[in-house]
Formats: sequence, C-alpha cells, structure tokens
Amino acid sequence: SAADSQAFSLAVIPGDGIGPEVVAEAVKVLRAATAGEAAGFELTEYKLGAEHWLATGETLPEETLAKLRTHDAILFGAVGAAPGDTRIPSGIIEREMLLKLRFSLDHYVNLRPAKLFPGVPSPLANPGEIDFVVVREGTEGPYVGNGGALRVGTPHEIATEVSVNTAHGVERVVRDAFRRAQSRRRKLTLVHKHNVLVHAGHLWRRTVEAVGREFPEVAVDYLHIDAATIFMVTDPARFDVIVTDNLFGDIITDLAAAITGGIGLAASGNINMDRTAPSMFEPVHGSAPDIAGQQKADPTAAILSVALMLDHLGLPGAAARVQEAVEKDIAGRGSAARTTSEVGDAIASLL
Amino acid sequence: SAADSQAFSLAVIPGDGIGPEVVAEAVKVLRAATAGEAAGFELTEYKLGAEHWLATGETLPEETLAKLRTHDAILFGAVGAAPGDTRIPSGIIEREMLLKLRFSLDHYVNLRPAKLFPGVPSPLANPGEIDFVVVREGTEGPYVGNGGALRVGTPHEIATEVSVNTAHGVERVVRDAFRRAQSRRRKLTLVHKHNVLVHAGHLWRRTVEAVGREFPEVAVDYLHIDAATIFMVTDPARFDVIVTDNLFGDIITDLAAAITGGIGLAASGNINMDRTAPSMFEPVHGSAPDIAGQQKADPTAAILSVALMLDHLGLPGAAARVQEAVEKDIAGRGSAARTTSEVGDAIASLL
Ligand SMILES: CC(C)[C@H](C(=O)O)[C@@H](O)C(=O)O
Ligand SMILES: CC(C)[C@H](C(=O)O)[C@@H](O)C(=O)O
Repeated sequence: SAADSQAFSLAVIPGDGIGPEVVAEAVKVLRAATAGEAAGFELTEYKLGAEHWLATGETLPEETLAKLRTHDAILFGAVGAAPGDTRIPSGIIEREMLLKLRFSLDHYVNLRPAKLFPGVPSPLANPGEIDFVVVREGTEGPYVGNGGALRVGTPHEIATEVSVNTAHGVERVVRDAFRRAQSRRRKLTLVHKHNVLVHAGHLWRRTVEAVGREFPEVAVDYLHIDAATIFMVTDPARFDVIVTDNLFGDIITDLAAAITGGIGLAASGNINMDRTAPSMFEPVHGSAPDIAGQQKADPTAAILSVALMLDHLGLPGAAARVQEAVEKDIAGRGSAARTTSEVGDAIASLL
Repeated sequence: SAADSQAFSLAVIPGDGIGPEVVAEAVKVLRAATAGEAAGFELTEYKLGAEHWLATGETLPEETLAKLRTHDAILFGAVGAAPGDTRIPSGIIEREMLLKLRFSLDHYVNLRPAKLFPGVPSPLANPGEIDFVVVREGTEGPYVGNGGALRVGTPHEIATEVSVNTAHGVERVVRDAFRRAQSRRRKLTLVHKHNVLVHAGHLWRRTVEAVGREFPEVAVDYLHIDAATIFMVTDPARFDVIVTDNLFGDIITDLAAAITGGIGLAASGNINMDRTAPSMFEPVHGSAPDIAGQQKADPTAAILSVALMLDHLGLPGAAARVQEAVEKDIAGRGSAARTTSEVGDAIASLL
C-alpha cells in the first residue's frame, strides 16, 4: 500500500517501557481493520523518548519535528524513564517531547472518551451507565511553561506558574465540544473554578455562553472542578461532554479512566481540528517501566486510540469496526491473564 | 462562663443557607462536650455572607476583621447565594469573605481529615480502611488572586492566573504535615504536578526532601495530582497524610469527602499553627440553598469541625469525646431520616 496513491502516511512513536509492546498490537489491529479499505497505511517509525535521550541527548530535535509534520497522523505509545532513574532530569521528556508535540502541532482538542464497557469492573459500587467524553484544551492553561523562580534554594525562594488562556484558544475548543455534544446526548458541562480563578474562569464561562447560542439544543451545565470530582464517583452517568482546561482536564480524565476500569482502557486523541498539522493518538497510560518487556501490558487503550485516529482520518467504518471488536473482546474477558500480543491477536481476529 | 477567666472567646459566623442550622447543632454539641471542662466558651455571633451582602453591600469590612482577630477561634457555617441569584456578583462572597479570612488570618494549614466511619456507605465497591488527613496549603498557590485580563470581551482577550509559591509558605505547611504523619502511621504523600508545573513543583519537592531529614521515620511518597485521583478510588487505604497546594488540595479533599460518605460528614480546620491569629473551623460543604431552612441538612460535618477546634484549643479530651459521640451516632444511623436538630440532639445526648 506504500505505492497506493491513497495511502495514509503514519508516524509511529513507540517510545519507552510498554510503549513498543502496545503499539505493536495497535498496528496489528490497524492492519486488520483497514485490510478492506481502499486506502492503506505507510508507517514510519521514530525513535524518541527517555531511552533515546539516554543514547543521544535528544528530546525532540527541530529536524524530527519537521519530519513528523509531513505525516497524516502520529501513533504514540508512551514515554518516560523508570521513576528511580536519576540520569534523566525529571519531566524533561514529558515537556520537551510530549508537550512540545502537542503545542507545536497545535493539538487543541485533547479528546478523551470515558465509557464503562459491559463486563468491565468499576471501582464504583453503582457506576451506572458511564459514557462521556472529555474535551480537554491542549495548548494553553497552566501547561504553557510560563513559570519562574527567584532566589532558588534560599529561604526567600518564590516560584510562580502562570496559566495563560486566550479567547482564540478557548473559543475553538469550546466550539468543538459543543459540536460533539450536538451529535451525542446534547449536554455540555463546563468544568472550571471560576469562583477563585476569576479571570480565566470568566473567559471560559463567557465563551461557553456565547458559543452556546449557536447550539440552542445543547443543555449547558457548570461544575467547579472540586464538585466535578464528587459527581465522577457518585453520578458519572450525568456527564455527556465535558469541556475544561488543560490542567483540570488532565486531572479529571485520570479519574474518569479509573472509574471506567483503569488507564489500561483509556484512549486519547491530541487533535488539531483545523488539520494544519498531524494529530496524535495515544493511550492515556504511561510507560510502566515495571512491567515493560514482559508482555503484561494491556494494549486495549492503544488499540482504542487507533479507532479515534481512523475516525479523524475520515474512515468511520474502520473506526467502528475496531471499536466493536474491542467491545466484543472485552465482554468475553475472563480472569485468565493474556499476553499483550494475545489481546492484540484476539481483537484483530474479530475484524 | 463569660465571667470565667478561662473562658474561650469564640466567634460564630453562621452564614447563609444551611449554615445557621448546622452551626446551631455544632454549638449544642460544643456546650455538651465542654460542660465538665474548667474552661467555658463565650460566643459572639457575626452576620456575614451573601444575605448580609444583599442587606448591606458588605463582604468583610476591616472593622469586622479586626474584631474577629480578637477571638480565640472562629466557628464558620457556610456562605454563598443560590446559584441562580444574579444579584450577587459570582464568587464575591467566596473571595472577599471566606478566602479573605483564610489569607488575612494566615490559615496556612487547611486540615481536612478523611475517614470512612463504620456504617457509612461509600460509593466505592471496596473502599477498605480509609483514614487519612489532607494538609492543604491555605495561603498561596493559584488562590492568591494574582490574575488579570487584557482586551476583555474581544477576540484578542487573554486571561492569566498566577500561582505563587514561596519557600516560607511551603516549608511551614510541609513541616506541619510531617509532624502529623509522625504521630500517625508515618507516611507522607506529596501531591503535585512537578513534571509540568516545574518551578512550583520543584520547590515543593525540594522542601519535602529537606524537611523530611528532620523526620527520618516518616516514609515519603510522591504522586502527580492526576495519579492521586486514581488511587483515591482504587486504593485510598494507602494514604496517611497528604500534603499539597491550595488548588490540588481543594480538588482532592472534595474527592476524599465523596469516597468517605459525602460532604455531609467532611470537617475542616483553617489553622494558623503559629497562633498569631484565630483559626477557623468549618464544614467542607457549602450553603446548600435548595434545602435551607428545612431541617434537612446533616450537621455532622459542622460537629466534627468542633472536634478539630477543641483539639486546636488544647482540649483533646473534649475533642475525643465529640469524635466518639459522632462515631457512635453514625454507627447506629439507619435509613430513617432525622432532622438537623435531631442529629444534634442525638450526638449531644451521647456526651
Ligand atoms: C505526562 C504528562 C505531561 C501528561 C499530561 O499531564 O498531560 C499526562 O499526564 C497525560 O495526561 O497525558
Ligand atoms: C468556596 C471555595 C472558595 C472554597 C475553596 O475553593 O477553597 C471551597 O471549595 C472549599 O474547599 O472550602
């Protein structure tokens, strides 16, 4: 399919730890799901992450970033060194590689669905029907790296972190969230903390109010982030689409993953809806160095991320097939442990 | 006891909504618990909150703040207008009254215990033994009000929020958390997001490392805020003392309240450990305008806040008695609804 004029060019970043293992299964399922499609996928692998940094000192060179830009999409595994590894400055891979990709490629919609599939145990006693998506802003907020410190290491140290929010940045992600709500159960919940973070909070509220006028059928709700965590565990069925900033979205999507069976199942898309750069699809989980190389990781989150990618690339049929195959596999999961590739094989065989 | 030279002078701020109802029961229990103590309590009531603002336009006048400073402690109910009430600028009471008190009186330890009492249903299927305290920083972080906005209401609006963290502010609260851990199960978990909020995060980490040297028996753990919310619902028994910043503490304590039976049971102390100003004790819940005046509110959180207050004032015997009476009452709670004052009566009668 490399010679196919309709081939999608896919960059693959397996990364560290369990990243390569889960990505291998995601690719396996991608191949199986698109075997019947006119368009094929041409894959180019990029070595990036903590291991790569240890070998080369590179996080994300401009040249690599430029090459990544030429692809139609990016499939991302996981990056990060073992917690005890002091050779790597803490957080450097996360910021100078993962976040740099999200910011440089303008991934303003960080899409994170949360669905409790039949058969999956939830830590909640009465989870109800959980099926919502979080639209997390991906290019602003406290993630912009606009912090600083003075008199470091002295009793007079002061350290700041600045959350930056723009009308441009907030409006585009809010509109995206309304669109998704419109095509789902028509309920949008803004999560923020506007009673304390007044300026950012009011920008978000006013924007939701203004954009909401374009979507009169969508019911709008508001929750402070603290209250939202309560409802996550007492009544998660109330949520349809949640829109929130980068940091609140980071927090609430891990909690959302936890109540729907864990981060082994949580998929995500870092999406540039304007398509001015490739979007990137990644499982929410990290590199899990403790179980790396042992075929113990669950590749389901990576595989569900492929479904999000297929949808974004305009292949909704293939996306739905992957989603269905995963749901079928999950429903039949017993307590018997399967290897990473056994799970991939099982899902691929359902396609 | 007003004439008693050992009388404690207590300021009482019933506030709005269910505030007055739950405070009445807290005072009832305070009286019952301290009937045998040498020291009595002299109470002075202060009218503050949304209702007071509507009547007078005052949030917290300097004169009132000066009077509040003269007391030994403050018992606080709840403040806040009904969500639909557009006469009150959103968040003004929270910021210019509640947060102003916490900041002006230097309540740097926002203490929030989370304990699942026997007999209390948790939304978690397998909660395990939940018994931890969150030491939330109370005078810094993103709560400082250092935000701003430019070109408001235009497509070029930019809104910022600044989190301010100082060595002074972080060190004192971290030391307090270590002390509490030392006298509990000797485990301290720092919750932050240092891989993204580098400058603030590293100040917190370095401080925990440095202060930790004074407490070699306390085991130190670290969790990113997102991961912490996962463990809150999958393994809350792992926590003993959590120390974290003002915003992360706000979020995690609502979640902690949810998994331990709801905010109807969650007590808190806004504590100035240097005793340069009175500390303030308040239930974590809000004013709940929807059930106000109907004797439907659970006064337990307010009553448990009295126990925290008694402890802070050097009356650990009375504090323990209140705590035990509450636990006894909770263990015997059936499904029959009781009025607010019936709950207060029941707990007081156990003293
Ligand atoms: C690794 C980290 C920088 C990242 C984030 O905070 O966004 C992760 O937690 C996530 O949610 O994808
Ligand atoms: C009312 C609000 C300002 C307050 C806070 O954010 O601290 C509340 O949520 C709390 O936790 O006491």
